[in-house]
Amino acid sequence: MKASRIIALGFIVLLSAGVVAEEGMWMPQQIPALAAKLRALGFTGDPKSFADLTGQPMGAIVSLGGCTASFVSPDGLIVTNHHCVTGGLQFNSSPQRNLLKDGFFAPALADELSNGPGSRVFVTTSVVDVTAGIVGAIAPAATDRERYDTIDRRVKERIAACEKDGSRCNVASFFEGRSYFEIRQLEIKDVRLVYAPAEGIGVFGGETDNWRWPRHTGDWSYLRAYVGKDGKPAAYDKSNVPYKPKRWLKVAAGGVKPDDLVFVVGYPGRTQRHQRFSEVKETVEWTLPRSIRLAEEQLALIDTLTKQNPALAIKLAGRVQGLNNGLTNSRGVLEGMDRGGALAKKQAREQELLAWIAASPARQQKYGEALAAMQTLQSRGEASRERDAALNLLSSASSYLGSAQALYRLSVQRAKPDVARDAGYQERDWSRIREAQDRLQRTIDPVADKALLRWAMDKAAALPTGQRIEALDRAAGLQAGMDRTSAAAAIETFLDSLYAGTKLADRDVRLAYLDKGTADLTASGDRFIALAAALEPLAEANREAAKNRAGAYARIRPVYMEAMLEQAGGLLAPDANSTLRVTYGQVKGVSPRDGLFYKPQTTLQGIVEKHTGSGDFDAPQRQLDAIKVLRAGRSSAFFDKGVNDVPVNFLSTVDTTGGNSGSPTLNARGELVGLLFDGTYESVSSDYLFDSVKTRSIHVDSRYMLWTMAEVDGAKRLLEEMGVSLSVPRPVKAPAKPAAPAKTPAIVR
Amino acid sequence: MKASRIIALGFIVLLSAGVVAEEGMWMPQQIPALAAKLRALGFTGDPKSFADLTGQPMGAIVSLGGCTASFVSPDGLIVTNHHCVTGGLQFNSSPQRNLLKDGFFAPALADELSNGPGSRVFVTTSVVDVTAGIVGAIAPAATDRERYDTIDRRVKERIAACEKDGSRCNVASFFEGRSYFEIRQLEIKDVRLVYAPAEGIGVFGGETDNWRWPRHTGDWSYLRAYVGKDGKPAAYDKSNVPYKPKRWLKVAAGGVKPDDLVFVVGYPGRTQRHQRFSEVKETVEWTLPRSIRLAEEQLALIDTLTKQNPALAIKLAGRVQGLNNGLTNSRGVLEGMDRGGALAKKQAREQELLAWIAASPARQQKYGEALAAMQTLQSRGEASRERDAALNLLSSASSYLGSAQALYRLSVQRAKPDVARDAGYQERDWSRIREAQDRLQRTIDPVADKALLRWAMDKAAALPTGQRIEALDRAAGLQAGMDRTSAAAAIETFLDSLYAGTKLADRDVRLAYLDKGTADLTASGDRFIALAAALEPLAEANREAAKNRAGAYARIRPVYMEAMLEQAGGLLAPDANSTLRVTYGQVKGVSPRDGLFYKPQTTLQGIVEKHTGSGDFDAPQRQLDAIKVLRAGRSSAFFDKGVNDVPVNFLSTVDTTGGNSGSPTLNARGELVGLLFDGTYESVSSDYLFDSVKTRSIHVDSRYMLWTMAEVDGAKRLLEEMGVSLSVPRPVKAPAKPAAPAKTPAIVR
Repeated sequence: MKASRIIALGFIVLLSAGVVAEEGMWMPQQIPALAAKLRALGFTGDPKSFADLTGQPMGAIVSLGGCTASFVSPDGLIVTNHHCVTGGLQFNSSPQRNLLKDGFFAPALADELSNGPGSRVFVTTSVVDVTAGIVGAIAPAATDRERYDTIDRRVKERIAACEKDGSRCNVASFFEGRSYFEIRQLEIKDVRLVYAPAEGIGVFGGETDNWRWPRHTGDWSYLRAYVGKDGKPAAYDKSNVPYKPKRWLKVAAGGVKPDDLVFVVGYPGRTQRHQRFSEVKETVEWTLPRSIRLAEEQLALIDTLTKQNPALAIKLAGRVQGLNNGLTNSRGVLEGMDRGGALAKKQAREQELLAWIAASPARQQKYGEALAAMQTLQSRGEASRERDAALNLLSSASSYLGSAQALYRLSVQRAKPDVARDAGYQERDWSRIREAQDRLQRTIDPVADKALLRWAMDKAAALPTGQRIEALDRAAGLQAGMDRTSAAAAIETFLDSLYAGTKLADRDVRLAYLDKGTADLTASGDRFIALAAALEPLAEANREAAKNRAGAYARIRPVYMEAMLEQAGGLLAPDANSTLRVTYGQVKGVSPRDGLFYKPQTTLQGIVEKHTGSGDFDAPQRQLDAIKVLRAGRSSAFFDKGVNDVPVNFLSTVDTTGGNSGSPTLNARGELVGLLFDGTYESVSSDYLFDSVKTRSIHVDSRYMLWTMAEVDGAKRLLEEMGVSLSVPRPVKAPAKPAAPAKTPAIVR
Repeated sequence: MKASRIIALGFIVLLSAGVVAEEGMWMPQQIPALAAKLRALGFTGDPKSFADLTGQPMGAIVSLGGCTASFVSPDGLIVTNHHCVTGGLQFNSSPQRNLLKDGFFAPALADELSNGPGSRVFVTTSVVDVTAGIVGAIAPAATDRERYDTIDRRVKERIAACEKDGSRCNVASFFEGRSYFEIRQLEIKDVRLVYAPAEGIGVFGGETDNWRWPRHTGDWSYLRAYVGKDGKPAAYDKSNVPYKPKRWLKVAAGGVKPDDLVFVVGYPGRTQRHQRFSEVKETVEWTLPRSIRLAEEQLALIDTLTKQNPALAIKLAGRVQGLNNGLTNSRGVLEGMDRGGALAKKQAREQELLAWIAASPARQQKYGEALAAMQTLQSRGEASRERDAALNLLSSASSYLGSAQALYRLSVQRAKPDVARDAGYQERDWSRIREAQDRLQRTIDPVADKALLRWAMDKAAALPTGQRIEALDRAAGLQAGMDRTSAAAAIETFLDSLYAGTKLADRDVRLAYLDKGTADLTASGDRFIALAAALEPLAEANREAAKNRAGAYARIRPVYMEAMLEQAGGLLAPDANSTLRVTYGQVKGVSPRDGLFYKPQTTLQGIVEKHTGSGDFDAPQRQLDAIKVLRAGRSSAFFDKGVNDVPVNFLSTVDTTGGNSGSPTLNARGELVGLLFDGTYESVSSDYLFDSVKTRSIHVDSRYMLWTMAEVDGAKRLLEEMGVSLSVPRPVKAPAKPAAPAKTPAIVR
């Protein structure tokens, strides 16, 4: 049996050697505890620098709300992903001038354009532990609901107090309610568009390459933060001046090579890694298969609707993109959870935790009941999940209904004192609600809306007894067990009356309704408002139930997390929650499956290979020309001898998720070497359970960005502002030779 | 400019370092001239052994007609690809017993099944240079037609003389008519099915993986050659005995590892590498785009026809597969010719040849006019190519018409003396023609046939003046410039009369027509026979023109090839022509495009990853179980420490094409290490211009075959017959331990 054991051992060695990526979207203050690991990877700096949020490099990292960005000059120049400024490019486009397609470069400061009224730059200025103030001194005898209300009120009061000086504040829960931190941010409101490459560079590969490798996307754009002459945030005004950040990133001269240590600092949105096994199981077995099915059905329906109607296709393009994106993500998570028995691993880990708890009376005393209690709460939610999901589907399918519900709920909430209003409906949220109702005009369409609501109502009509949406049944004349023909007829009659009796497709009507009280709204006689009012009791009951559950979880989940932390020896990264995090890793390729290897870097060569001249692979001619000039022997400071070309994108083992888009990638000296912009398809399941072998993030190499700015888009002004040298580094002692002048750029001005 | 030069030099170094695969499907007698190159790759044997067709290993290699195979035991056991025995598996299947799906293993000799009456094994016994006898002493003043007829007659006479002793003979042209060799083969007619894995192994990956990497296909099967008790070939008879080959291949114990030297010996079908630039250009610019367009149209039409008709879908499955296969191939060739400017390279090479000729008066004298003369001939063919292609399309679209034309032409040819009959219509071909008319019954369908002929007639109706198929115009009432509605109406009327007036869908009628004379056939009144007769003058005129052209090419092409050979210093591999060839290369991965690397080997792990349980990825449960047992620590002689698993498929740089399927892959000691079964998508354009960087052949690793036989299919009888040891090699001195008994196989018996 000796030979057998050798083989078995071989597998174990492979398995541990295969662990390459390390889990952890760390809170900045956790980094010093990781010093030994960082040193092993070649880090020579001071790990404490990451804990200083206003120091170098952390002070240079900003949030755009949904994306991350960083200052790269003392004059407020910001670099982020191209896909993070799509809104600004659309805002500045017209039928005559399509910035999204052609790109944009402001030759001088005065040419920089407003990135749109909703565009924001958030600079984190302080993070304070407020756990005691939020969850301290709550009577153990308090009901779950009282606990929820207390925490909710304290969070709101804290935010209100914090925002008094004009800051934007947030109280975020870490480790599932175990800790709370108050995050104060400077909110810069005048953000301007400085430079974005053409679509053929910035979105090269499009949906086809989304989440895929090899990748060749030039996913960068530049903004600039402006403030009033007094240095304080102010709304857009021509006379505003560039913001002077305390910290900005230096662009690395040398770029990266395979195995280099890299950091990503940013605002990852949401991960679910600390969920229990049965929560992930529900996601894998119910939530994701259901959302895949629904997305496929909606896409098929929209395809039929838009096949002969290009104008409608444009209106629904965003919805289609979102559905496709969600579909790919859901499928990726399911595949990832299936791969190598991830769900079983999750279960095994939980079994280990339970065994660890059971092994000590003290731990039993402390943690013994938490998991069972959480299971009970989960089961309670599962009982009505079909009905609740069907109710939500109605609102998401129909923009008319979604709008009516938002307007109706706002009218109800506005009648309360601000601190008692539901989160999202407080005064601080009103401008966002107004913007959303305004924006809706671009996408609302009665024909498509009716078709989608019909589809969603079919689902509601098919619900079993006991899980019916009774208000809908009454309104539309539906009941459980009704034959399909009768149900369809009833739905059709109801839909006809709804769409004939509404003015919600009219922007002015919606905006006027924003200011109305509940009685006035009801008196309008709008049939969608009436439906929203009819559905409100169930929606409110669901929200109430959710609050009760949240109160219970606020009691139990911290205990569960405490157990996990103790078991891990105190060092564990909390799940992502849109707050500032630091992750580190190495530039590394990966074998996504047997027989295949993703090289760690791509090059300009791949652009030439993929270019078809249309669709997702339509590189600008001036870029193809610049590549030819390079091939013909032109020198470039951004040429990499390792790949014998200008590098374009690279893979790393850093741990990122949505919200990290635009995050700077830093080398061991804290210098900018790239921008994070995507993860591979094999990585999406890491939001639920980290896959240490297959997970890879995708970055755009700063050298591709700089080469394009110098040789394709003529953005030398910005290179100078960032202090980037165009001289070719020489191994010999000859003096550096400046590059030939950049080509006249063909980009739109 | 120094830096620029360094970069440019870098590219050149990369380019030459990138040359990995070496062109050459060599004639066996050419191998000794390659001795130095083989030694450089680690070959220690005698290169002359490849020139001895009856020695080791060449005497073990056989042709199955369209596929290659090899003897692997002294008792006539033959190994080839699974996809080379599909016909035999179908022949032995019934609704109750689907051998294609379930696989087959004969537990004993007596259980081996006839592989079908058409199944053949051809053992090459001699190859003789007959150039002088075929093209010697033709009067220089002979017309092109006289030249053609002389060569045609001499070839037929030679074959007839050669076949007198029961051999199957062929006179093949090498180097475009520069040399002729008479190939004599022993034709074994009793071929039996011994073992084929289940479809889930033998066709794992199906159409999805066809031409793709990473690959995990178990593309092997075993046959056995039987002869009469006198040792001579005989038709299937229960009392026949296994053939005793003089040579058979030994299976290598150690398998292969990356960079190992490997040989492939087999019968590659056809390449076009010695075509002139403008011939390849016509293929790239006219032939392939046209065939892609036609294949796409046909596939769309068939899709519409079969969508609601599963029975028809089965009938047309072969046609669909053929169209898809051709489509992928054509697209691959176009992509390959586009990649790296292959067409321009071809042109540059021809320019070099012309310059080389122009540089010497003697060469000018000898070769000066050949290229221009070939261009004139090509242009002549191009003048009527639209009409000629439309005529051929009618026959290929409609099985009724194709059958009618074959029957009619046979009746005309049969009236002549055998030696004067067209090749393919001689007495030696009649049984094949009969088999084809018999087989047609499985696929012929009036509805589909009519739809396809309508589609082909639409093309013919749209031909311009001067390129009309006049006989079709007269028969169907069509004319140039007719409006589409009138043309469609005329075609419809004509089609109705055709299908109402034919009995060709009846197998017995077709077989009876095989023996009729032309007058009798015409008297049958069958409308398709009448159409075939009407089209025959144009078809015959085209054949006559082709013969004239062939006569001219027989005069000119050898001169062109002579020039190429002299320029190359005498050593050049002739284009493939279905004769025995030897190619060598190394086990090597490849970067098919920027950022991606195809590893050289795949493993069992990939089967587990790809397995979905349905469609193209449905591995048998017993195989998945065997993999689990291996993972659990079971020892295996076929485990490879380099990949830490049992290897499944591998890539190599050997130069192969269609017809090589089933060819043995040999190591430097001439032992079997795998079977060639496919090439990568990036390699198909090498049929026109060899791509020395991207070309890779795909092999099944013999260790995967042996592991499956031992652990999955219980085919130990064959392992013993091949002398394969199941003992695990030990680095220590302990005696070899026999493996545990194989599992009871679940394969169909």
